[in-house]
Amino acid sequence: MQNLKDHFNILVGQSGGPTAVINSTLYGIIKAKKAFDQITGIYGMINGIEGYLKKPMVDLGLLSDEETELLKTTPGAYLGSCRFKLPEDYQAQVYRDIFARLEADHIDAVLYIGGNDSMDTVARLSEYGARNHSPIRFIGIPKTIDNDLIETDHTPGYGSAAKYVAASVRQMVLDAEVYAVRSVTIIEIMGRNAGWLTAAALAARKYPEDNPVLIYLPETDFDMADMLHRVRDLLSKRNSVVICVSEGIHDASGRLICNLEHSTGTDVFGHQLLAGAGKVLENKIREEIGVKVRSVELNITQRSSAVQASFTDVSEAAACGMKGVSLALEGQSGVMVTMHRQDTPMLYTIEYRGTKVGNVSNQVRSFPLEWISAEGTDIKIDFMNYLAPLIQGESFPPMENGLPRFLYRRQSV
Amino acid sequence: MQNLKDHFNILVGQSGGPTAVINSTLYGIIKAKKAFDQITGIYGMINGIEGYLKKPMVDLGLLSDEETELLKTTPGAYLGSCRFKLPEDYQAQVYRDIFARLEADHIDAVLYIGGNDSMDTVARLSEYGARNHSPIRFIGIPKTIDNDLIETDHTPGYGSAAKYVAASVRQMVLDAEVYAVRSVTIIEIMGRNAGWLTAAALAARKYPEDNPVLIYLPETDFDMADMLHRVRDLLSKRNSVVICVSEGIHDASGRLICNLEHSTGTDVFGHQLLAGAGKVLENKIREEIGVKVRSVELNITQRSSAVQASFTDVSEAAACGMKGVSLALEGQSGVMVTMHRQDTPMLYTIEYRGTKVGNVSNQVRSFPLEWISAEGTDIKIDFMNYLAPLIQGESFPPMENGLPRFLYRRQSV
Repeated sequence: MQNLKDHFNILVGQSGGPTAVINSTLYGIIKAKKAFDQITGIYGMINGIEGYLKKPMVDLGLLSDEETELLKTTPGAYLGSCRFKLPEDYQAQVYRDIFARLEADHIDAVLYIGGNDSMDTVARLSEYGARNHSPIRFIGIPKTIDNDLIETDHTPGYGSAAKYVAASVRQMVLDAEVYAVRSVTIIEIMGRNAGWLTAAALAARKYPEDNPVLIYLPETDFDMADMLHRVRDLLSKRNSVVICVSEGIHDASGRLICNLEHSTGTDVFGHQLLAGAGKVLENKIREEIGVKVRSVELNITQRSSAVQASFTDVSEAAACGMKGVSLALEGQSGVMVTMHRQDTPMLYTIEYRGTKVGNVSNQVRSFPLEWISAEGTDIKIDFMNYLAPLIQGESFPPMENGLPRFLYRRQSV
Repeated sequence: MQNLKDHFNILVGQSGGPTAVINSTLYGIIKAKKAFDQITGIYGMINGIEGYLKKPMVDLGLLSDEETELLKTTPGAYLGSCRFKLPEDYQAQVYRDIFARLEADHIDAVLYIGGNDSMDTVARLSEYGARNHSPIRFIGIPKTIDNDLIETDHTPGYGSAAKYVAASVRQMVLDAEVYAVRSVTIIEIMGRNAGWLTAAALAARKYPEDNPVLIYLPETDFDMADMLHRVRDLLSKRNSVVICVSEGIHDASGRLICNLEHSTGTDVFGHQLLAGAGKVLENKIREEIGVKVRSVELNITQRSSAVQASFTDVSEAAACGMKGVSLALEGQSGVMVTMHRQDTPMLYTIEYRGTKVGNVSNQVRSFPLEWISAEGTDIKIDFMNYLAPLIQGESFPPMENGLPRFLYRRQSV
């Protein structure tokens, strides 16, 4: 489909939590301008749809080639992000404000990079546009380390985070095993509702009996007594026990393990101490078994580590950006870019398509139960067929004086 | 000095906390066998001097060339480690046991890789040997991410940990700055008594006013009220404030900040909650200022990350191992390998020497006060002249299926 107007301006936004490759997608979108000569301008909204009404756009065409290349390997979110939910009522003023601004800015397509919540924004804007016969196209591009979007084989951001988790756990296991004393190490990994990222700890094992010997996801109920029993048994056979847990593990009643301590712990200032799931397990094991215990939260390094990101992930994130541009040029709207693994033996290939964004928004794709062991304490090796291609290859940011160079906008000071 | 016996067997031990490069030193020692044909065997003690009396040595000559190369880029401690203090009483049975075993094993030199406490072990064994006219030589080889050994410009392990800290803080700052809401992020870095590693966060800044805007070391007294005042002021000018603190910061009375919460916090199981310094600051800022606050502990990843270690550090760690062998062959004992930066403009070079290990053991080299700002809240840029060479160059472990390959001994299961 040919665009017959004298301009085709694209506006890009980033939304939700940052990842190692959300800027790789932005890179892909900027590079698409070279591939499609209909495109007249590519602009960025600062701090997502929330910031768009308050701040001027930035002209991404002004980035030099070197800056654009830097973007590909820069973590965080170059354009800034937001956590903002559009109202259900399409009569709300905010819709009129956004569309007035888009028209004033001569925008023809909005590409929005984000996770489940951000796809809700794309769905609402495209619905409002359709109701009001707006020609502006709205395309969602997936991004989340949680890998919990439906209708796509995986999400950009997951591969790099999974690679970081697997490599870090493998290194921490070497560290945990140096002493000839019995000890337990608990590693808490991001994932409130879905265990995809925690499951990647399986790849850390160097041989079948290797640590981490226990892996717990939020897809099954966590049983404290059973865990203590297993740890006791394992400690009778080996010195070092390493356990990986998702932050969102819960008991059979659905109560989060990380909430167990809320009721009584207060600090000197009188407020409640919030302990993570790992900390709760640490305290319980120390109390009940009395061995040396340590808990580690991988925390925001999981989603911001670009120093050894997955080359596959970086490349796919850029390709998703390009596909988003191409869908917009085709005249599609209310669509999210999806990735489909081709069923080719021995060869990993991805086909990029689009799906109605309304199918995706506000849904969670859980980690499949068939890849969790019957006891709920381990991940089956079958999962590796799915995971392995996603963590292949190394992407390195350029280094300067021994440290990674990144592209950034200065904070106003 | 020529060794006139028909053997020169070296026994190596690793002791104290692991680093990214303690195995690089072991690699250097094994490679030294090629350089010095007097050496008849190189053996490893498992779990340091404590394990030596209980477990058979391993013959490091049995490692293949490929395995030896893998050792160079493997974190942890391949031989295992211990935390063990020899008694002050040289009449103690343990000394007689160790020397009887060394003689039975035909050991001519013991190389012990470790930090302050491990140097105490070297000092005591060489002193006992001297008193009892033993020909066995004892050499210490420095290792600690804390960089707190005296008589040496720096210690192997520090450069890689500092590079990891600087790169991680730089990435976390990008992450912390994505939202247009006021927020504080606290990053807690290892260092109970010395602030060298936390000071490396200075290198994370991309421009002078960049985050982290506050850096606190244990070398000065931490003033909570002053910190709160500064954070309030900073938040009036910028959205995101990132603070780096050493785990060992303390108030003017010497009380550790991380102990502030010990007295009252108890969890549901009735035991005290131990909160790190970062957590204490997080709670205090939330309570007093009421903004979004997050604290992150870099934890054991700081000392176990080999995926992008400092090439300078890895090379120097190996060179320290080689130097230890050469000192032993010269007939020295009770000596620790030291590194001396040559005063050559524009060119960083290190000369390797030895110093009496008794000068070093049980001493702590603090971060110099002249590199701390007058207010005690920042590090002066002068420090970068010292730090920059130590983090130069990248060392990468070989990759296999997207993850780093390491050399390991299997845990007995």
